[in-house]
This record gives sequence, C-alpha cells and structure tokens, in this order.
Amino acid sequence: MTTASIVGGSGYGGGELLRLLLAHPCVEIKQVTSRSHLGEYVYQVHPNLRKRTQLKFSDPGALEPVDILFLAQPHGQAQHHIQEYAKLSPRIIDLAADFRLRDAALYEKWYGEKHAAPEWLSKFVYGLPELHRADMLAAKYISGVGCNATASNLALLPLVKAELLDFSSPIFIEIKVGSSEGGAEGNSGSLHSERANVIRTFSAFGHRHTAEVIQEMGLSPQCISLTMTAVDVVRGVLATAHAKVKAGVVTKDLWKAYRAVANENPFLRVVKEQRGIYRVPEPKILAGSNYSDLGFELDESNGHIVAMCAIDNLMKGASGSAVQSMNLMMGWEETLGLEFMGLHPI
Amino acid sequence: MTTASIVGGSGYGGGELLRLLLAHPCVEIKQVTSRSHLGEYVYQVHPNLRKRTQLKFSDPGALEPVDILFLAQPHGQAQHHIQEYAKLSPRIIDLAADFRLRDAALYEKWYGEKHAAPEWLSKFVYGLPELHRADMLAAKYISGVGCNATASNLALLPLVKAELLDFSSPIFIEIKVGSSEGGAEGNSGSLHSERANVIRTFSAFGHRHTAEVIQEMGLSPQCISLTMTAVDVVRGVLATAHAKVKAGVVTKDLWKAYRAVANENPFLRVVKEQRGIYRVPEPKILAGSNYSDLGFELDESNGHIVAMCAIDNLMKGASGSAVQSMNLMMGWEETLGLEFMGLHPI
Amino acid sequence: MTTASIVGGSGYGGGELLRLLLAHPCVEIKQVTSRSHLGEYVYQVHPNLRKRTQLKFSDPGALEPVDILFLAQPHGQAQHHIQEYAKLSPRIIDLAADFRLRDAALYEKWYGEKHAAPEWLSKFVYGLPELHRADMLAAKYISGVGCNATASNLALLPLVKAELLDFSSPIFIEIKVGSSEGGAEGNSGSLHSERANVIRTFSAFGHRHTAEVIQEMGLSPQCISLTMTAVDVVRGVLATAHAKVKAGVVTKDLWKAYRAVANENPFLRVVKEQRGIYRVPEPKILAGSNYSDLGFELDESNGHIVAMCAIDNLMKGASGSAVQSMNLMMGWEETLGLEFMGLHPI
Amino acid sequence: MTTASIVGGSGYGGGELLRLLLAHPCVEIKQVTSRSHLGEYVYQVHPNLRKRTQLKFSDPGALEPVDILFLAQPHGQAQHHIQEYAKLSPRIIDLAADFRLRDAALYEKWYGEKHAAPEWLSKFVYGLPELHRADMLAAKYISGVGCNATASNLALLPLVKAELLDFSSPIFIEIKVGSSEGGAEGNSGSLHSERANVIRTFSAFGHRHTAEVIQEMGLSPQCISLTMTAVDVVRGVLATAHAKVKAGVVTKDLWKAYRAVANENPFLRVVKEQRGIYRVPEPKILAGSNYSDLGFELDESNGHIVAMCAIDNLMKGASGSAVQSMNLMMGWEETLGLEFMGLHPI
Repeated sequence: MTTASIVGGSGYGGGELLRLLLAHPCVEIKQVTSRSHLGEYVYQVHPNLRKRTQLKFSDPGALEPVDILFLAQPHGQAQHHIQEYAKLSPRIIDLAADFRLRDAALYEKWYGEKHAAPEWLSKFVYGLPELHRADMLAAKYISGVGCNATASNLALLPLVKAELLDFSSPIFIEIKVGSSEGGAEGNSGSLHSERANVIRTFSAFGHRHTAEVIQEMGLSPQCISLTMTAVDVVRGVLATAHAKVKAGVVTKDLWKAYRAVANENPFLRVVKEQRGIYRVPEPKILAGSNYSDLGFELDESNGHIVAMCAIDNLMKGASGSAVQSMNLMMGWEETLGLEFMGLHPI
Repeated sequence: MTTASIVGGSGYGGGELLRLLLAHPCVEIKQVTSRSHLGEYVYQVHPNLRKRTQLKFSDPGALEPVDILFLAQPHGQAQHHIQEYAKLSPRIIDLAADFRLRDAALYEKWYGEKHAAPEWLSKFVYGLPELHRADMLAAKYISGVGCNATASNLALLPLVKAELLDFSSPIFIEIKVGSSEGGAEGNSGSLHSERANVIRTFSAFGHRHTAEVIQEMGLSPQCISLTMTAVDVVRGVLATAHAKVKAGVVTKDLWKAYRAVANENPFLRVVKEQRGIYRVPEPKILAGSNYSDLGFELDESNGHIVAMCAIDNLMKGASGSAVQSMNLMMGWEETLGLEFMGLHPI
Repeated sequence: MTTASIVGGSGYGGGELLRLLLAHPCVEIKQVTSRSHLGEYVYQVHPNLRKRTQLKFSDPGALEPVDILFLAQPHGQAQHHIQEYAKLSPRIIDLAADFRLRDAALYEKWYGEKHAAPEWLSKFVYGLPELHRADMLAAKYISGVGCNATASNLALLPLVKAELLDFSSPIFIEIKVGSSEGGAEGNSGSLHSERANVIRTFSAFGHRHTAEVIQEMGLSPQCISLTMTAVDVVRGVLATAHAKVKAGVVTKDLWKAYRAVANENPFLRVVKEQRGIYRVPEPKILAGSNYSDLGFELDESNGHIVAMCAIDNLMKGASGSAVQSMNLMMGWEETLGLEFMGLHPI
Repeated sequence: MTTASIVGGSGYGGGELLRLLLAHPCVEIKQVTSRSHLGEYVYQVHPNLRKRTQLKFSDPGALEPVDILFLAQPHGQAQHHIQEYAKLSPRIIDLAADFRLRDAALYEKWYGEKHAAPEWLSKFVYGLPELHRADMLAAKYISGVGCNATASNLALLPLVKAELLDFSSPIFIEIKVGSSEGGAEGNSGSLHSERANVIRTFSAFGHRHTAEVIQEMGLSPQCISLTMTAVDVVRGVLATAHAKVKAGVVTKDLWKAYRAVANENPFLRVVKEQRGIYRVPEPKILAGSNYSDLGFELDESNGHIVAMCAIDNLMKGASGSAVQSMNLMMGWEETLGLEFMGLHPI
C-alpha cells in the first residue's frame, strides 16, 4: 500500500479527498491534520465518514514521512512550507492556488503579492489531467486546479484543441456556482438566510481563476473574461462560454472536436440530446462524480457558439482531479477510486 | 370605482394580477375566468387570497362589460378574440405575447406562424412604462412584456438612452430564471425532483423574448443574444449583460446614466455598494415587489461592461408592469397598489 | 402622526418591523438604532428598503423621546434597561423574550438565570392579540412572542378554547422551522453549505418557547413537549400538534371550534380543503403576511387529533404581531399596515 | 457472473437499482424494461449513467430468463404477473408494495382492495435485512420496503428489540420526506413552483406504510400513527418518533440498546454528538448511501423518548435494501456494491 497524508483535512476539499482516499484500493492514509479540530474524530467534521474510519485530526507540526503528501490548506500557506513538505514526501499534490501558475509575474498580477517560493513554480505540473496527462506520468509535484478555471478550461478545450475559435472576438464565460465554493468558513453572505434563493453576480470580472484560463488555454488577458454568479445549490459549477468560431466552422466540425476529446478522456462526456429532460450539461447530477459534462450550441448564422461545461467543484474542480492526478503519477489506472456515477434524481 | 375583469385567472400571471387588483384602491374586480377551475373559489387555486375574496372562477364565455379588461391567457389566444374583447371593454391590457411586437414580420419570424390579427398590432403600446410612459397616458390598448425581455431591456436602458454602447460589438445577455416562468402547467422537467438544484442552460439562443429586446432597444438581430439558464428559485430573473462601451466612456459616465434613469422612474433603483451583503442587484429580495434593481461594472482597461438587472418575473416582468400601465392609462398615481417593498430575508 | 423608534434595527425582527412601520399610515419613525451598523443607511442592511427611506442607523445611547418604543434586541438586554426606556416613551413593545413570562420562577426555570427586573413582569401583556386583545386596548407595555410558541399556541387555541382536549394524554408538538429563526448572526451550522437541504431535529425537547405555551394555554409542564426540526426554507414555521380529544368529540365539533376562532380573529384562517394543491396550512404562502393558517385532522376511531398551524415566523411570530398589538394599544384598526396577502407561487 | 434484469427501470427506484447493479462486482445486467421509454438509452432517462452503459430500455413482454429478477414497477402490477415472473427467474426481489404484507386481510384494510395473489404472500420475506437477515439467506422471494416504514421501523428497532417501550402509550411518528418519494410521474403539487419551499403535512394519519410498521414491529394498530410532512429536499427521510419508555429506563439503557443494533448491522450507525454541526441523524449526508443513522433523546423526568432515524429513501428505503437483500440471498458479502459513503457538504 502507498501511504498518504493530508495537510488541512477539515475543509471541504480536504474532506472530499479523505473520502476518496479512504475508498481507494491502493492507498493507506497515515495522517490528516487540522489545527482547529485537533484530536477530534474526522467523522465529527465530515459525518459521512462515520463507521468508515476511526482517524482523528492530528497536529500539522507532527507530520511523518509518507509516499505522497496532499496539501489541502487555504491558499497562501503551502508556498511558505514547501521545502519542509518536500523533505517528508517525494510526491506532493497541492489543492490550493499556490503552485498553479508557472509565471511568478502572472501570480503577482492576479494575487496581488509576490510569490514566496517562485523557484518552485516550474517544478509543478498544472493539475488537470485532461491537459497534462503525459507530464503527470513523470511528475513529482502536481498543483491543484481552480474549480471555476476547470469548468472554463474544459468548456473551451475541444474548441481550442481543434483550433476552431476566432480569437479576435472576446470570450465571455458566465459561471454559476454553489455555496461549497465559499469553503467551510464562509462569510456573512454565506449564512443560509442570506445565501438561499440567491442569483448574485458577485464578481463581474477579475476573478483569480481567470489566470489559470489564460495560462492553460494560451489566451491573451484582454480577450477573456470570467463572470461569477452564485446560485442556490451547494455543489456544482456550470460554465457557459460565449465566443465566436472561425468563418466556415459548422456544427459538424464541433461534433468531431467534442467527440475527440471525450474519446481521449475517461471523465469527459458530451451531452447534447434532442429529447428528454437532460439535454445539456448540468452539475445537478454530478455531485460526488468526477465527470465533466460538455455541450455546445452554434448559431451558424453568425458564428456565435455557446459552450457549456458542468462539474462538481469539489470533485473534478478539486479533489477528484487530485486523485486522478495521483493515479497517473503513480502509474495506476486513471479512474481508480473515482468510479462513483453520481445520482439521479438529486 | 373602476371595474375590471381578468380573462385567465388561474395561471401565475393572472393570480398575481388578481392579488394586485384586490388591493388596489380604485379598482373593483367583476369577473375572473378559468375554464379548468370553473366554479371554484379563486383562493382554492391561489391560497394567499383566502379570507380576502369570495370570488369564484367564472366562464370566459359569459364576460360582462367592464371599464378595463385584463387578458392573462396562455400565448396565442388573445389574437383570435381581440375583436370580441374590444366590444366588452374600452381598455385592454394583455399580459401574453400576442400584441407585444409592432411588426407582423418580426412576429412571424420569432413565433413561427402568421399573426391572426396583424391590424391590431399598431393599436397596442408596448407594456413597459419605463419605455412608453407618455404613450400610455393616451393608450387604450397596452400589451404585456416578456419577463426576460424586461430584465434585458432594463439592463440596457441606461446605456442605450445615454448612447454609451459600442454596437459594433455583440451584446450577450445571460439570464437566470426561476421556475414560475414555466407557468402553472409546467412540463416533465418542471417536476420538483428534476427541477430542484438545477443550473440548466435550456436555451443558448433563439428565445422568443429576444424579439422584444430587438424592437425596444432598436438593435440589429445579429448583435444581440439571450441565453437562458434555469436555477433553483421560484420567482426571479437576473439578466447579466455583456457589452462594450464606446471608447472613452468611464465609470463616472455610467453613474450619471444610471442615476438619470433611476431618478425618472419610481421603480428603478441603482444597486452598487462597496460594503455589506447586498452590493449588486438580486431578485431574491424583490419577490412581490415591482422594483427593478440595476447595477454595472466597467472594466476600463478594455471597455467591457457587465450590466445587471434583477426583477420579480411575475411583478415587473408581468403583472406589476400591467398594473403600473393601468395606473398611467387611467391617469392615476403610477405607483398605486404597487407599494409592497419586498422582504428581507427570504 | 404617532412617533416610534426601534432599538436594535439591524436584526431580522427589527428589519421586518421597520418595513411594516415605514408603510404604516399612522406612524412616523424617528430612530432606528444599531451598534454594529452605526451610521449606515438602513437599506444597506435591509436592501428591500432602498428608495423607501433615507434613515441611517443611530446610536442606541442617543435615543429621543417617542410615543411608542419598540425593542428588537437580542434576548436578555431589555430587562437591564427597561427603566431607562420607560422614561423615553409611555408605551413599549418588546420583541425579545425578556417580558413574555408572568412568573419570575418560570422564567428562571426555562432561561437558567434570575430575571433582572422581575417587578416589571406583571406590567406587560403577552403580545399575542388572539389571546389578549381586550387587555391590549388598555396596555402600556406589551411583550413579544416566541415564533414557535405562537405556532403552538394558535394550533391549540381552538381546541383549548372549546375545551375539547383530553389533558390526561400528552401533547406532542412537532415544529419545522426555517433558517431566519436563527437570526442575522447565525452559527457554524447556519452556513448555507451546511444548512441547505437539512432535516435536522436540533431540539427534541426543552426549547425555551415551551414556557410560553405552558403559560398561555394553561398546561402542566409534564403534558406538553415541543420538538424542533430545521428544514430548508428561510421563513416559515409549521407546528403539527398531536393530542387526544375528549371522548365523544367528533369532526363536526372541531369545525365549530375552528370557525369560531377564525370568525373572531381577522388573521386566523381555517384551511381544510378536499381538492387542489393547498389543502392544509402551509407557511410557504405566508411569507410577509400576518395570517396564521389553522387546520386539523381527527381520527375518530381513537380520538387522535393532528392540529396544524402555519405562520411566517418574522410576521405573526414576531413583528407582525407586534404591529397588530400596537394597533390595538393605540385604538387603531387591528389590521392596519398588515394587509399584505402573501404570494403564490413562491 | 450472476445475471439480473429489472422490470420497470425508468422510475426512480429502478434507476437507482440500475446504478447499483452496474457497479456490483458479481452481477451482469441483461435487460431493463420500460414501456414509456422503449428503445431509448437508459442514460437518456438517468443521465448519471452516461458513458457507463449502452443498455437500452427493452420491452417488458420480451423478458428472458435470468438468475435474479428485480421488479420495480408502480404498486399493484407485480401481483398480477408474479406467476409469469417466477417462471423466468428462480429469485425475485420486488420493490413495490405488492408482497410486503404477510396477511391478505391487513393488505385489504390498508390498500382498499383484495390482493390478486394472496397465496404468494407467505412465500416472500419482508425486505429489510436488519429485521430478516437469517430468513434472507434461504429466501427465493423478497419484497421491497416502504421508505417511510423503513425509517419508522429502524427508529423503533433498538427500543423494540431491547423491550424498552411502554406500549400503553401511543407512538407518534413524524416523518419528513423529500420529493423523490412522489416518483418520476408526480402530480400537480409536485411542480417545482408549488413544491419548492414547502412544509406540507399532507397525511396526518392513514398512510399505507403504517401497515408495515404494525406488521414488523408487532404493534397494535391503535397505538401507532405516522404523520407525513413534505419538505424541500429531493432525497431523504427523517422519522422522529415520540413514545414512552417503561418506568425506570434511563439513558444508559438506551445507549446499550442502540450500540447493540449498530454493532450487529453494518449499515446502522448511532449519531449522538455533544459538539460540531452534525449531532443528530440527518438525511442530508446520506444521499446515495445505504446507511441508516439512528439517534435518541430521553426526558428522564417523564419517560418521553424522541427516537430519530434518517435514511435516503431511494437507498435504504428502496433500492439499497434490495441490493443488500440480494447479497444475503446470494451468500455474498452483505455490503457488496453499497460502499458509497455519501457526501459532505451537499
């Protein structure tokens, strides 16, 4: 068995990771740390884990060596301790934003501060297997992914890969998100009585995850915009991207591009039905699943394309991609421990 | 007292209208019709009206003359009976889509069928007081408004009126809607177990309400697109419009334009706060209210503007605007019977 | 105009009260206090009030004399300052729990501490007009009501008044509540991601509101039990009471008892339909309304009665009853300012 | 591989069963029937299954022999065709209510009609493994369970097994349920706009599932009552049972009784925490899981016990128990294919 520990296990990303690793056939969990819940059973914070583990939250200062170390802390902490972590484990997967960007200047621009360990940025592979599968096979350090960035990158992936987009037109990505994105701490606007029933466009542009879309899709910052709207669900992200295709591109070309990426990637699915209730990608049915559902509509009269991507922000947008990355890094079957299909209805 | 009747009172628009007219100080309701609920007390269908009225649904074939007739039937019926209705009442306000468009060709293009009474189109004033207040003072026939069209038109109004938009760039309007838009009949996708928790982009483009935005904002069909996403609320529409402002336009210009329309219109409010939970327009707090909350964010680096409008689809997007139109038509105070402030929290 | 001020206006009860008083035809609001939001516009906290008032939150230490003073602070504060408040205003209505109980010993038992101003307890009338209308006409000091107590008391009222209950059997009241009961501060369990989708029986028995049911219904503490379950709504309480009727009592007797209380009380309605969707009392349609909907089912085979009461916890369960009490105290029409019918659908 | 087919696979119970069997390591699915969706891919109805199976719905009239046949039709159909089904398969598990009751008279009383195949009633084992594990090991025919009956039976199980209840007092069970209980067909009250935000006590007593509680707990019909309240979730049941314990029973006795049943049953857990958010059983975290969480509170002053049980109605309350029953019947590990832990947050 491969040993693994999780630094920062009381948050939502850490809890989801814990759930996945507990069920993973090749992994044995050694430690899960939490300062605020030190000594408590992990199931007291993540009640779904009751009767599945007797693990208690341990002290982050007392970490023992393991085969693979997961960092699931709030953003901004890992970069200050990465040297220590690297001494404890030959392989690190960081779910936070600390090592997602390759360029320290890009980091500084979007995060408003100098990076504390810029020399480490080049050692990390960006943690979306659909974009960096080959690199992951040989990687020691893999970053996390922003959930909104992931929905955006996967919405654009078939179009960018097949070179169908007209980059002279701007790309507007409208992203609708659930409350679990706000984390287990929340803020005054996260109170149920204030957050229920919302349709709240809380960020018109400037969201930090934009940097990951710029980097991974190779876009000019001027041409891409992410707009974030909070809606009344707990889990789930839907990205609806508006862009222009190149002159002459028709629906048939798009089908070909989408089918290609779905065939190459076990967790990508194309959803575009003519009948039934579920004709387009929807995060609703993806809770707990690592799938990313993709769809599109093309207005052939003017080349306007609406490209959609639905994910569970805590799975494909965080912990699911981390486990998928681990599988690749370790040479295991890519889908191992990620077989849950999601629920209908829910 | 002015007498009024409602044709089609068992639907959501008709029910909301009934609630407003029951509380209106100048109106006496004579009849409310419903074929499917004939003979039932109106409060059996609209339980909020219990102890407020002993009205029963009457036969639409037995309408009596009144001072003002409201039509709240499903789309496509009023145009076949408009002559008869005009004999019963000197003033008609139609909530359906039958008389919203001035151009029979535009109607045919978006509704896929010839209009049954094209000669009546020019007799109707489009039912959004913020756009046609002066005309309403002398009108006899006023149409309804599409709820999504209303959120879109009001999102664009300050920008169009002040001539701040660069029409050479496309306008993408992302609209999030609640389930009451689907009406009291619904479809298989409206079942709670399928509709709860959704983020469902059910119409990428081509929604019929687009025609009203084209007509009222004077836009080229090629430059405007409405994308509809269903979310888990019952009431409420948020339109988030993406567009480009003309070169040189800065935030200060936008403040001026927004304040101008808010000052001229009692139900328009500008919401753009730097603190607190409610910094942007949100439909959540508008349930039952006739307000339309407007907001914006401008990226001065590239001229990208995100303009937001929140309404209650059954109020400002339907029955509230109808009552406001009636007030103008009758020469009454514009806000009469529309004083409800909405609730917080909800 | 009668002048009124609200001490503690940034909470949910205070905000709802403010909404009602702003629309009240006989009242002019002088001050609304809040320590934490001092100097902010009230609409920044209660966004539904935007464009309806330019009031700012003022310092509770700078209260001026008024005709009627409303106290809407968290429980436990008013009893320490009641002397000062009484100097500022001849009439006081307190929404908190400080003066609801007549007996200092009962207070100590349920609240776990000695009352700070026991000599004031006898000066207050319990604030439910349906129970103390006559006393209110002459009252100077009126307490608030617990929302769960109100739903329970009104569920039992027709049965107790008509002396139909067999008190030798216990009365179990199952109460389902929305998140606004938790107040604008909330706790870790109030975070949307933890509070959404809940069915959480957070108090099996021992809830403080039980004391108000014991006092007002004249029950033995041993025979009454309130069980609280949180569900996924913001506003609303449904009390479902299980009890036994006296031998020989049949459904006809119950109809008589229910109709009697509904006839005597403008805000009580009996809901017991054989058809349609809304056959039983439901808080859903009561948001913003002061109605209390009552219903019942009797199993004649064993005398088991299920008595239901639905209210909006912030209206009939708090601020609505307070305004209704004020109307009686001032000799005004009881329903003044409380005419809002509630919404359907919502 | 053991072959299995599902009759009636387009409903919610059938869909959940299909999901579980697709992931089961010992089962191969041969056919899934549906008249209304004949020829469609199963993933068009159950979109979570996309990319996991290419099965299409087949004709129920063209069933082939299999090792185990699951019946997931609406209630009332299986009893008319049981002879034919028995020729096709040596083992049958029926999810509907047709064969849950052992006594034809009890069936007639609660279902209001004569049973069509009373001679088959004694051949079936009631499908709750926690009650009939031993019998299932040798069974050929196993019935389904009512979801509300299951929540009730498991809430009472520790108390009944340890003989702690005082049956001279009535047992009131308050059950809160999600919308998926209404099935994929629903009714007018199931429309999202009418069903959202509800707290609707739709059945005060007389619910058919009561018969299963009477039968399985060995109760007198006079002493037990189930009251059903619909709340705004899709999945989940919480039963809150009110009863009296025998004189002298204290909390320590209850802990012993609860721990005993939890130790003997892999899917039963006791939830009774002094800290954290999740102190009591809640269905929220059980979506997709086969766990049943049990909790209790005892008022030692009067012997009133509140016993709680939370389940996912489609899992432990239907398809999960069916798969668990199959595992026992086939001599497999009881938990096989039922390992999903549920999600937090959700």
